[in-house]
Amino acid sequence: MRNIKIVVEYDGGRYSGWQRLKDSDNTIQGKLERVISEMVGAETEITGSGRTDAGVHARNQVANFKTKSDMDVLEMRSYLNTYLPRDIVVKSVEDVGERYHSRYNAVSKKYSYYIWNGDVPSAFNRKYSYYVEKPLNLDDMRSAASKFVGTHDFLGFSSLKKSKKSTVRTISELSVHLDGDMVRIDFVGDGFLYNMVRIITGSLLEIGLGEKDISHIDKVFSSNIRASAGITVPAQGLFLEQVYY
Amino acid sequence: MRNIKIVVEYDGGRYSGWQRLKDSDNTIQGKLERVISEMVGAETEITGSGRTDAGVHARNQVANFKTKSDMDVLEMRSYLNTYLPRDIVVKSVEDVGERYHSRYNAVSKKYSYYIWNGDVPSAFNRKYSYYVEKPLNLDDMRSAASKFVGTHDFLGFSSLKKSKKSTVRTISELSVHLDGDMVRIDFVGDGFLYNMVRIITGSLLEIGLGEKDISHIDKVFSSNIRASAGITVPAQGLFLEQVYY
Repeated sequence: MRNIKIVVEYDGGRYSGWQRLKDSDNTIQGKLERVISEMVGAETEITGSGRTDAGVHARNQVANFKTKSDMDVLEMRSYLNTYLPRDIVVKSVEDVGERYHSRYNAVSKKYSYYIWNGDVPSAFNRKYSYYVEKPLNLDDMRSAASKFVGTHDFLGFSSLKKSKKSTVRTISELSVHLDGDMVRIDFVGDGFLYNMVRIITGSLLEIGLGEKDISHIDKVFSSNIRASAGITVPAQGLFLEQVYY
Repeated sequence: MRNIKIVVEYDGGRYSGWQRLKDSDNTIQGKLERVISEMVGAETEITGSGRTDAGVHARNQVANFKTKSDMDVLEMRSYLNTYLPRDIVVKSVEDVGERYHSRYNAVSKKYSYYIWNGDVPSAFNRKYSYYVEKPLNLDDMRSAASKFVGTHDFLGFSSLKKSKKSTVRTISELSVHLDGDMVRIDFVGDGFLYNMVRIITGSLLEIGLGEKDISHIDKVFSSNIRASAGITVPAQGLFLEQVYY
């Protein structure tokens, strides 16, 4: 059996997220599995590096699948991009060792969240960012961002009720960038809890808008209570940028 | 009467172009006039700097209208962006002198055409560029581009059959840029004939793909025959970037 790794870019806007659902194939995984199965002539399941939620985008999602097909990798890429919907693009296809597993072998991931902070909304970025009209204090957001870097229990910054598994994660980078009217927040970490990137972004926004003080973050960390953290910002601004192996 | 100038950004993807049509209001001008008329409480017509075709985008289209309303300009902008569809954004509203005319006073315009030249298409830029898979020779395209700069009769590079009006125009800049996999062609000129930007782009593409020689451009100029110029590339890659006064 060959083990094939693919790198996928998708506009998540009209999908119910990455993970295949029983009653709907309106998922990225579902669309990919259907076309891959047709291509290799056998029911084929793929393993992604992790899920992305409904509406979340990816520039470099990674997945792998096993197959007996002897099709050339460039032919595969061309086949997939011909038959996939145009908002899902396979950027590369390569043979990898049989033990390669796109989820277990992932060491860390990079997500970016995009906030459009102009005087008026953007006609072009509206589906790929969250519009915040009031001016943001980026210095305050950067100071707050530094509080998340390191190893912490992020339960209070997730949508998990409780968890039997550990909710401790390590964030190695959390940086705030400005390009014209677009604010981008980059997150690099060894793993992210459910909605964690979107809730941390919401918490940074409250601070950038002057609604809460930076010290508030310590309180959430010490109490672990979700309700006291910021809102969960919308999916449309979130991109899975990179998976590191 | 006040004379109000507006700067408008729009994603032209789902519209039948700028110019209001009798039987359909699926035009940018039509949408703007409806919301402006409601805002000022009187049927109001607007004058654009020029038309854009169906599917063409604009970052800074300019228009003006006369009104007796005494509404504040920032209130107007806020009203318009609340009631316009989200793919049409009014970036600024200002009072101008009564003789200001957004078409007659326009001195020159800048258009850009975007070509995605990656190994695979782009999930995110697919609606804002034309995908060309084969590699382009940008040096050849730049040499060819320089032949258009200056004052010429552009009849052969337009979709006009014949014209009673002059088809002589002056292009002051035609430059080819590369950013990652995106090729951008910038056009600055005192006026552009029907489909001229898209046909010149098609002609540059033929040369970039090695299908035609640079000398071919001189032949089109000397014959003025449209059929011998390049294809008309699709509207989705074309942006009206700026109108200069």
